[in-house]
Amino acid sequence: MARTIQSLERAAAMLRLLAGGERRLGLSDVASALGLAKGTAHGILRTLQQEGFVEQDPASGRYQLGAELLRLGNSYLDVHELRARALVWADDLARSSGESVYLGVLHQQGVLIIHHVFRPDDSRQVLEVGAMQPLHSTALGKVLSAYDPVAHSEAAEAEREAFTPRTVTGLADFEGILDLTRARGWASDVEETWEGVASVASPIYDRRRMPVGAVGVTGAVERVCEAGELRAQLVAAVRDCARAVSRDLGAGRF
Amino acid sequence: MARTIQSLERAAAMLRLLAGGERRLGLSDVASALGLAKGTAHGILRTLQQEGFVEQDPASGRYQLGAELLRLGNSYLDVHELRARALVWADDLARSSGESVYLGVLHQQGVLIIHHVFRPDDSRQVLEVGAMQPLHSTALGKVLSAYDPVAHSEAAEAEREAFTPRTVTGLADFEGILDLTRARGWASDVEETWEGVASVASPIYDRRRMPVGAVGVTGAVERVCEAGELRAQLVAAVRDCARAVSRDLGAGRF
Repeated sequence: MARTIQSLERAAAMLRLLAGGERRLGLSDVASALGLAKGTAHGILRTLQQEGFVEQDPASGRYQLGAELLRLGNSYLDVHELRARALVWADDLARSSGESVYLGVLHQQGVLIIHHVFRPDDSRQVLEVGAMQPLHSTALGKVLSAYDPVAHSEAAEAEREAFTPRTVTGLADFEGILDLTRARGWASDVEETWEGVASVASPIYDRRRMPVGAVGVTGAVERVCEAGELRAQLVAAVRDCARAVSRDLGAGRF
Repeated sequence: MARTIQSLERAAAMLRLLAGGERRLGLSDVASALGLAKGTAHGILRTLQQEGFVEQDPASGRYQLGAELLRLGNSYLDVHELRARALVWADDLARSSGESVYLGVLHQQGVLIIHHVFRPDDSRQVLEVGAMQPLHSTALGKVLSAYDPVAHSEAAEAEREAFTPRTVTGLADFEGILDLTRARGWASDVEETWEGVASVASPIYDRRRMPVGAVGVTGAVERVCEAGELRAQLVAAVRDCARAVSRDLGAGRF
């Protein structure tokens, strides 16, 4: 079995470091954050810079992430089968619901948004493809935690942060929500992650009937909910969309 | 001066390989494409997989790009000052022109799209953030080639492919177009890259008055042109937008 390569692991750690927190760091910051000698850190940064993964500000000499990551991230999306199959269905769901649609997959300790259809109105909206959402409080995250064992252990073992007074943080309560999710086939988030925002999501299966992602609708709680409950029509539309994408992925009718 | 690190260079070459052409490759394909022993290639792929840069299809065993690249690419956008300053102006330009707006920077041998505002109608459109456009035939690419010496040598030294019968490929003709671009302060592309599509773009400067990117409008040639020429109103709107972003970047009035 092949060994892993230390300089590559260190390079990946540097990119993660530059992706979070300060985001523009000097050589000494990088070296001390990763516990490396300056010369070692410089050799890695220099190679990352040469390959376009890191850019150096000419004025300050500080390092930040490079453009090649954007190009490669876009190529990742191009080859993503789930996303390709979901594009048309997600558009239809946004149109019929009048709300934003998100498609997410498990990545590390959260939900990675791989597709986002804007709410079909003229309001200014920020594209969230590539952004991460928490597993324990969002509808997409609950669906993944309920159906994907890896996501489940990530969410169960993590510190479940209270984003609002409604966030469920206790493990027993959280497991209860996942049981309910599996029983109903969908999950909701009513102001548990963002004040004033509610969402509903449902799982997507592939041809091996493995849960490979989740699709959901997100919007203002006043529009998405009725008498404190998710609007039944919206739940039905999200589940229809998830079924359609699963069928396109070869999961068979269910 | 620090040396560059061979295993990192090889890892970057693997990611580029997986980003182009086939996009799903077996171990032997990767090893032979890069002239590496299978064991060496496997060690690098294994580490890239562990770090989330590469994913392996469980059924076929083939490798493809991983989700971490999308997350990092999104972080690159978050920290991009030009993009942050341009967001509002690009929205305004899309609204006033009724066409798609693109913001591009030089990356490797082309234009990397770092922001894309959809044409403000209900039509289905594909987000092109992270996509590459050619330097020699697009309006964004001509602007970068005219104002950025590095882009200029890339475009001058490259094989200039004829995408349509109207693409300018000869070096003298191409240099003539760049002279005209510098004289007018904007560049156009009338069906030189895509049949039926025309665009106009203008340069963006930073506080050191260096050309750091280009902004442009793209649409159906029937709407964007009038009697074979770019509509003057559209040219003015694009130049206004480029000036506004440059001012926000500290370039001063000009």
